Amino acid sequence: MILEVATLDVKPGKEQNFEEIFVEAQKILSSMDGYISHQLQKYIEKNNRYILLVNWETIEAHTVGFRGSAQYQQWRTLLHHFYDPFPIVEHYTAVHGNNQD
Amino acid sequence: MILEVATLDVKPGKEQNFEEIFVEAQKILSSMDGYISHQLQKYIEKNNRYILLVNWETIEAHTVGFRGSAQYQQWRTLLHHFYDPFPIVEHYTAVHGNNQD
Repeated sequence: MILEVATLDVKPGKEQNFEEIFVEAQKILSSMDGYISHQLQKYIEKNNRYILLVNWETIEAHTVGFRGSAQYQQWRTLLHHFYDPFPIVEHYTAVHGNNQD
Repeated sequence: MILEVATLDVKPGKEQNFEEIFVEAQKILSSMDGYISHQLQKYIEKNNRYILLVNWETIEAHTVGFRGSAQYQQWRTLLHHFYDPFPIVEHYTAVHGNNQD
């Protein structure tokens, strides 16, 4: 299992709109092959920062399957205009812990 | 519930030793009041980067309870010498998703 981590800096003032649109956008994410689960969390120390954590079965489910899909174009249209700067996405794999979800 | 996120850059060559010591150190973490769960994950694109995700009942359980505890001194002794640079720790709270663990 792979954990995708994206720190999302949303343009100031657009936070509420972003959170509303994300409700729709997450339906795309959760319909993809190889998708397991996700969380969107809001940074406490700074108003316009979020973190998106997505569990995928494999890295390719994200980088090839999702990003190469027709649905990704819709995801991009819904969300990418909110970000400044454009987010860096990282992939992790579990080492230790009691919570692999 | 609060999510603590720490990106950990471990000194190159020290990764295996860090992972071994972390097995011991995580016992301290999971014994703390207000601790819920944690994951240590390894960055796929870069050998010496990790992410530590810890769920706490409140932000104070981490920032006051854990950091003010005697056990934190032991945690620091075990782990802090591995990091370069010293990690920035962020706190998040859930907005959306199907996985709040």
